[in-house]
Amino acid sequence: MSLLVLGTVALDDIKTPSGMKRNMLGGSATHFSMSARLFAKVHLVAVIGKDFPRKELQFLRRKGIDLTSVVQAPGETFRWQGEYKKEDFNTALTLGTKLGVLEGYLPEVSAEQRGIPNVFLANIDPDVQMRLLDLIGKPRLIGLDSMNLWIRIKREPLMKLMKRVDLFVANDGEARALTGEQNLIKAAKKLRRFGPGLIVIKKGEHGVLFYSDKFAFSFPAYPVEAVVDPTGAGDTFAGGLMGYLTKAQKLDLASLKRAVLYATATASFNVENFGMAATAPLTLPAVNKRMRELVEFISC
Amino acid sequence: MSLLVLGTVALDDIKTPSGMKRNMLGGSATHFSMSARLFAKVHLVAVIGKDFPRKELQFLRRKGIDLTSVVQAPGETFRWQGEYKKEDFNTALTLGTKLGVLEGYLPEVSAEQRGIPNVFLANIDPDVQMRLLDLIGKPRLIGLDSMNLWIRIKREPLMKLMKRVDLFVANDGEARALTGEQNLIKAAKKLRRFGPGLIVIKKGEHGVLFYSDKFAFSFPAYPVEAVVDPTGAGDTFAGGLMGYLTKAQKLDLASLKRAVLYATATASFNVENFGMAATAPLTLPAVNKRMRELVEFISC
Repeated sequence: MSLLVLGTVALDDIKTPSGMKRNMLGGSATHFSMSARLFAKVHLVAVIGKDFPRKELQFLRRKGIDLTSVVQAPGETFRWQGEYKKEDFNTALTLGTKLGVLEGYLPEVSAEQRGIPNVFLANIDPDVQMRLLDLIGKPRLIGLDSMNLWIRIKREPLMKLMKRVDLFVANDGEARALTGEQNLIKAAKKLRRFGPGLIVIKKGEHGVLFYSDKFAFSFPAYPVEAVVDPTGAGDTFAGGLMGYLTKAQKLDLASLKRAVLYATATASFNVENFGMAATAPLTLPAVNKRMRELVEFISC
Repeated sequence: MSLLVLGTVALDDIKTPSGMKRNMLGGSATHFSMSARLFAKVHLVAVIGKDFPRKELQFLRRKGIDLTSVVQAPGETFRWQGEYKKEDFNTALTLGTKLGVLEGYLPEVSAEQRGIPNVFLANIDPDVQMRLLDLIGKPRLIGLDSMNLWIRIKREPLMKLMKRVDLFVANDGEARALTGEQNLIKAAKKLRRFGPGLIVIKKGEHGVLFYSDKFAFSFPAYPVEAVVDPTGAGDTFAGGLMGYLTKAQKLDLASLKRAVLYATATASFNVENFGMAATAPLTLPAVNKRMRELVEFISC
């Protein structure tokens, strides 16, 4: 089964207590693809600059990701410089952002891709996300992620988007900012009223809360002792979630629980090394092994 | 089966976004007893002042709590004034503390109580906790709780206590302060090396982490939408935990998981109303009902 993802492809400079790495392949859609590819055929919709390293394109292709709708535009690839402090690994400090080719980017997809039944709008400007929705048909399942910046400066387009998607993924800070509710159960209920039937609130090292009209559930995170770089953990999580739901082709309680567990498992790998160093070599058997450990760790 | 608990009995003035209540029955040992009584015969070891309301003593007696070792000393009952802000229900702000009869308190137990096989040292001065351990025989299971104040000003006696107990209960902030580790898995492992074989780290609304040499597991909290007053939630949790372990008389994985779930369930009631308003009328069938909901909410 196929899964279309729109989002950013970036080159990241990241500093964490474990060290500093420059020019790493990053971006919301890239991290998403790196875990979603384990479960489904991923079609990436993104823009890169003229400076984008050829070897990274080859790398993505080797990972089985369809790059038909990755456009190379004049200008520089989107760059993000971030830091994580030892005291709070859950919060990324943005040291610098260079939009580059992201500015003015209008996504395009091939005629064939328009019919892909599963779509994820990874974190990028809500106007760009909306543009993609206008391009495509009526997918079976549309997922949406965003970030605090857009909640602050593009609330209205974001609220319009919420009405058109089935699944919304947010971290706890975003859920609180978007709803004004401190209590995450209340926040989840309010997000539900904004439109999406399926609400997933990620709480970083504290796990995840799922809410829908029919059922709610919660899982703790996989216990990672040595967090090296959390960049992209949320995107990796979303990739595991949407990837598994694409494969399962069902939205019943058992499939949703399994999808959230796969999301948790893939995200736990992501934080164990810089950039995609831990998720790039990942195989489904390795993820399944961790799934079994995770289930044992959290089963009651 | 019997369970001996040493700790504070207090009169609390508490302010939360839901309102302000004065002269409420509180204290670590009282909150502990109110949930432990559902599973075991609780013997309370504590001091109260001459001002302690007779009706509260009658109330505790009616709840089946043995008050043989509650001494009434000249002076005032320990008083705590605290506040919780809407933005952070996990953190109690202490507005005032009057030690009263707690100052100079030396616990005593009856000859019969010395043989009680399950003992919990609820939050009180570590020197007082040590004194109780010196009074009693060789219990089957000794549990210990503490607080940031003692970690800061009485670290040495606390570390000595740790070597003599089997189970240590801490919230995430305390675990971090005591070990210097931000990562809670690392903190749990370090706490294990301090002495206790069973480590329970409570993360408030984020649930709980259990660690021992043989196994580790984690559960999310029961989803409480309307938190009214979290005072005593940790003590109520510890009461459910020790109460169930006292009843089960086993420390295998299944019993420990069940004990942590009962602890989670009883604590979820505690936060839903001021003081002991929600835990005082609680019955085991009501707790069991919530247990089933909780298991459904977190089962994978």
